[in-house]
Amino acid sequence: MSATKTYAAQAADSGLAPHNIERRELRDDDVAIEIDYCGVCHTDIHYVENDWGGTIYPVVPGHEIVGHVTAVGKNVKNFKVGDNVGVGCMVDSCRECAACEDGLEQFCLNGMTPTYNGEDRHDGSVTYGGYSERVVVSDRFVVKVPDGLDKAAAAPLLCAGITTYSPLRHYGVKKGDKVGVIGMGGLGHMGVKFAKAMGAEVTIFTRSESKVAEAKKQGADKVIISTDEKQMQDAAGYFDFLLDTVPVKHDLNPYINCLKYDGTHIVVGLLESVEPPLEMGQLVLKRRVVAGSLIGGMPETQEVLDFCAEHDITCDIEMLDIQNINDAYERMKKGDVKYRFVIDMQSLKNAD
Amino acid sequence: MSATKTYAAQAADSGLAPHNIERRELRDDDVAIEIDYCGVCHTDIHYVENDWGGTIYPVVPGHEIVGHVTAVGKNVKNFKVGDNVGVGCMVDSCRECAACEDGLEQFCLNGMTPTYNGEDRHDGSVTYGGYSERVVVSDRFVVKVPDGLDKAAAAPLLCAGITTYSPLRHYGVKKGDKVGVIGMGGLGHMGVKFAKAMGAEVTIFTRSESKVAEAKKQGADKVIISTDEKQMQDAAGYFDFLLDTVPVKHDLNPYINCLKYDGTHIVVGLLESVEPPLEMGQLVLKRRVVAGSLIGGMPETQEVLDFCAEHDITCDIEMLDIQNINDAYERMKKGDVKYRFVIDMQSLKNAD
Repeated sequence: MSATKTYAAQAADSGLAPHNIERRELRDDDVAIEIDYCGVCHTDIHYVENDWGGTIYPVVPGHEIVGHVTAVGKNVKNFKVGDNVGVGCMVDSCRECAACEDGLEQFCLNGMTPTYNGEDRHDGSVTYGGYSERVVVSDRFVVKVPDGLDKAAAAPLLCAGITTYSPLRHYGVKKGDKVGVIGMGGLGHMGVKFAKAMGAEVTIFTRSESKVAEAKKQGADKVIISTDEKQMQDAAGYFDFLLDTVPVKHDLNPYINCLKYDGTHIVVGLLESVEPPLEMGQLVLKRRVVAGSLIGGMPETQEVLDFCAEHDITCDIEMLDIQNINDAYERMKKGDVKYRFVIDMQSLKNAD
Repeated sequence: MSATKTYAAQAADSGLAPHNIERRELRDDDVAIEIDYCGVCHTDIHYVENDWGGTIYPVVPGHEIVGHVTAVGKNVKNFKVGDNVGVGCMVDSCRECAACEDGLEQFCLNGMTPTYNGEDRHDGSVTYGGYSERVVVSDRFVVKVPDGLDKAAAAPLLCAGITTYSPLRHYGVKKGDKVGVIGMGGLGHMGVKFAKAMGAEVTIFTRSESKVAEAKKQGADKVIISTDEKQMQDAAGYFDFLLDTVPVKHDLNPYINCLKYDGTHIVVGLLESVEPPLEMGQLVLKRRVVAGSLIGGMPETQEVLDFCAEHDITCDIEMLDIQNINDAYERMKKGDVKYRFVIDMQSLKNAD
């Protein structure tokens, strides 16, 4: 591997903004990517605002990256200049542990390297994400964007897509299963599309009557107003799976009551404590399951893109110039986006 | 089905104590059983003391019943007079729903009939359990006690046994898996025996250093003192499965931290709310699972008895005369029993 200055050092040397610097000289397994589009994930806001602590400034967010290859390291076999490619939430892992061997790099026992605000395993530099003109990533962590997929609308598949696809696959959702999707944002609306494509009957849980028409438009077979106690009670014991995409504290118990025996409540959005507390009798008496799920490994990240190409699925997006990112964040905080902002990176290049 | 007087009516007519009455005239699928032994479950105490409300007095507890057949209804094919048989926590279910069709009668969609303090589906009479000379049960809910199993020590297999066996089987515990058993009482010590017989490496979690020798005697490969923070931290990410038999509120988070990614924390003892609350990040970031499990269906209840005969497994018991049941309850409340009390029902017959 060639020694390189850290990104921060390059930035200091150059006086240029971070987005405007070649990320590093190519290592043998590296793919250099010119970024065309980058999805905006709520996680980006958390890092920008240091909500979880630990943000290293300057931070370059963005882990829903789609672009094209501009150069490859000498050992790269699977990518060539001009290929349309994607990069998701990870750019490296140890590659040796049981999780990496299983293609579950997100659970790397030595800790995966996040696409931004992480630490490069080779030179210790900070990793920078996709709100940028280019990025350099080891080939194992690059996926191909199949022909026929709209590149901009494919970008959110790299996080919102894989996050909802992976658990539905992991738990074997199949034709005829009854799947409930809780939350109708960037993740939720993707969950609906995937569960439908897998043959399930899909119900959207929403808090407001005003969203019923939109839920149906999204493809939901049924809609349940989660604030209506009677509707929730009527759904008792109905679902095989619930895909819970709500990113803030909420009561899981009324949802779990809607599961069949052996049903599974899959949480992808919530990292905090469960309050009000989980009623364990609801699990024990019906052999129900509460499970977490985190993005997906690299083989499955390629799989979701291929699945989307095959089933003509993309994310519903609103395109954005980078100059409007702060407004976009404000709108996202209010839930005012259908369903994912994607930055047209040409706007960044035009600004230079 | 022949019409019969309710048990209560019979009791009123006879002036006899409940245990001393033929339970009902035989229906066509009934098996009449003279009870030889009955295990004492903590649930019995909860019903006797009406801890959960809803106890119908007089209550006859006992759902770990072993006896021998004294008569059978005209359609009974699988049992004959003299057979050694067992009855567990259920004596009936609808037999028509998806759960019943799957042999998961404990999850009967129309509600299973518990062995005691339930309502007979045919005549509405109250069901009475195994602290008794005899019981009459529909053949579907009777299992065979294989030759070679000690009848007294087999009794607790009908509840404590199946409760711990079923989830280990359901989740496919196999040779080489690392299983932790939390709690070393009637359920926990059975969980150890089963997990060992399935080829797992078994660790017992106990709160006290003083129980280490006993845990090793029970067959544990390793022991972790759960009150020792360092030991708990050292076990981070170690286990494939945790079998949590603790019946009172406790903090699940330090245990979940001991699971590998994809690990499963199986709760069989706790019906209350989880406090302190579950940290959902612990599940999401490692795709871990929290699952409940409830006894087992009738096919699996037969299976656990056959498994025990094959692997020479029984419960560690302390035999008890019925006259000492109140003392036994007091000792159980203090955790002072290794590991299950079993009533020798001869003591009841001698008292008549």
